[in-house]
Amino acid sequence: MDDSHIQLAHGNGGRYMRELIEQVFAARLGTVDPSLDAAPVQMDGKRLMLTTDGFTVQPLEFPGGSIGSLAVHGTVNDLAVSGAVPRHLTLAAMIEEGLEIALLQRIVADFARAASEAGVTVVAGDTKVLRRGEGGGVYLAVTGIGEAWPGVHLGMSQIRAGDRVLVSGPVGDHGTAVLLAREQFGLRGDLQSDSASVLPLAQSIWALPGLRFMRDPTRGGLATVAHEIARATGYRVALDQPAIPVRDQVGAICDMLGYDPCFLACEGRVVAVVAAAEADAALACWRSLPQGADAAIIGEIRAASPLVTLATGLGGERVLQELEDDPLPRIC
Amino acid sequence: MDDSHIQLAHGNGGRYMRELIEQVFAARLGTVDPSLDAAPVQMDGKRLMLTTDGFTVQPLEFPGGSIGSLAVHGTVNDLAVSGAVPRHLTLAAMIEEGLEIALLQRIVADFARAASEAGVTVVAGDTKVLRRGEGGGVYLAVTGIGEAWPGVHLGMSQIRAGDRVLVSGPVGDHGTAVLLAREQFGLRGDLQSDSASVLPLAQSIWALPGLRFMRDPTRGGLATVAHEIARATGYRVALDQPAIPVRDQVGAICDMLGYDPCFLACEGRVVAVVAAAEADAALACWRSLPQGADAAIIGEIRAASPLVTLATGLGGERVLQELEDDPLPRIC
Repeated sequence: MDDSHIQLAHGNGGRYMRELIEQVFAARLGTVDPSLDAAPVQMDGKRLMLTTDGFTVQPLEFPGGSIGSLAVHGTVNDLAVSGAVPRHLTLAAMIEEGLEIALLQRIVADFARAASEAGVTVVAGDTKVLRRGEGGGVYLAVTGIGEAWPGVHLGMSQIRAGDRVLVSGPVGDHGTAVLLAREQFGLRGDLQSDSASVLPLAQSIWALPGLRFMRDPTRGGLATVAHEIARATGYRVALDQPAIPVRDQVGAICDMLGYDPCFLACEGRVVAVVAAAEADAALACWRSLPQGADAAIIGEIRAASPLVTLATGLGGERVLQELEDDPLPRIC
Repeated sequence: MDDSHIQLAHGNGGRYMRELIEQVFAARLGTVDPSLDAAPVQMDGKRLMLTTDGFTVQPLEFPGGSIGSLAVHGTVNDLAVSGAVPRHLTLAAMIEEGLEIALLQRIVADFARAASEAGVTVVAGDTKVLRRGEGGGVYLAVTGIGEAWPGVHLGMSQIRAGDRVLVSGPVGDHGTAVLLAREQFGLRGDLQSDSASVLPLAQSIWALPGLRFMRDPTRGGLATVAHEIARATGYRVALDQPAIPVRDQVGAICDMLGYDPCFLACEGRVVAVVAAAEADAALACWRSLPQGADAAIIGEIRAASPLVTLATGLGGERVLQELEDDPLPRIC
């Protein structure tokens, strides 16, 4: 790989992206902790949480959402999994010359609806127009500000050997739905993106003292979250493949195209690490919610060399490598 | 003009942009007040100020700065003119496949340096990679969070007939420097962008009870700020052309190319409206600072129909129309 220029793989959530962020951004900006979904900020004694994200999904509309709803969900979810109640959003829109205004109106309407459903207000905005051919229709950048919930202090540093890994629902729906919406493969289906606010899921387990860490598995999917945990903790993340919920349709499409659903983006799921003694309680909380009906305990943290392993249904075990090349065209 | 698709003129700061923001964004997002540089947010009794901006300047580096330093200045300036001390920034970078990493490193270094100089910390970030041909090298979206300075309550609603209009330095330097850096005209000069934090200028007059309103004249320049004041207040903004500071070089280039410096972007200037009795005091504050050495009183607010007029040196007066067509290619 040419290492003097930006490649698509720098955006896929895997190793190249991590190195770009560490070496180019975090090294210079100092205070950015690239391992956090949202950053705590003390303002006059109050612990606020801030998060920011750029949204560049193609196509702009897909089954189950659009770049407008996705931008809200992606932002509020980063706050929710960090233990904060989302309060306010800012929106910077970069719009390409030639975009149909009716499409822009639908996207903004989706944004407004998703914000309203998530209970956040949009307090500041900006628009820029990009020259024709210098943008993908529209890009959105959203910043979310939330209030840290008292008593909730989550982080990878709290993860211990023996903890259980949970996921709130089937993985890979968003990545697969966007893939199909691109129509590059001639495949069709009724699969919808899982794009949604995960605040109800996150809030339902905030009160569990054994809750260590949560993350929404977006770019790079479940596998990338597992790799981040292994790298940060020095523990092994041992996943149990048959326990990982995957829709039949997603599994079939991945088999056909050679993708692994564990690497595909979700936009409405939560991965949580919970003390073993409270794993069943957390699972029960999630399963009591419509969004968490298919939640499952999918693995555990082990005091062993920091790899991500996947136990197959046949008693075998394989190592799940960190994502390097782009698994599919830009999906978030 | 085709009114069903986005045009470049939707991004120039003038009428089309205003209508786009009002009709497509503000109408749906509800709580966005499009006339504010930064929005006040109550968080547990504390008055915070939030602002967000997208940065899409071409070329990425220009005399006097780069998209990195510009992104910091543009954000902290929106807070400073709103009466807030900038505290924290978030940065979302959208990077085009094929961008030279060395250039990206310079841009991030400029961002870090400008942030440090402005006394702000970068607390959260995100990177996305755009496919080759779908981005202008790199776009940045920055959100700023500041603390409202106690006792400072600025707004166009406080402007009264008889108030004076001040500008902190020569207008149009940034727009002209970027224009020259594009090399489309075969012109060369040593002109530098005025891109800088205006926090010292803004803070120097916060304590004046007669300070009504401040704005940094970016897209659409001084003329657009004057139009915004006329529209919001119903008063006339009567500017005195000979009093408006313009560098000889900027004036000469504008004469040659047919631009009016009043419409060109500044990125380190402040326009202030101050009660007549305190205009001289404000001017003295600004002139005592290196950045304000060329500050001037350039006009007044009149109880007359809401136009922007420009008195020429020969005793004549002409109406300055609101910007409609794009005055020059994308400059901010």
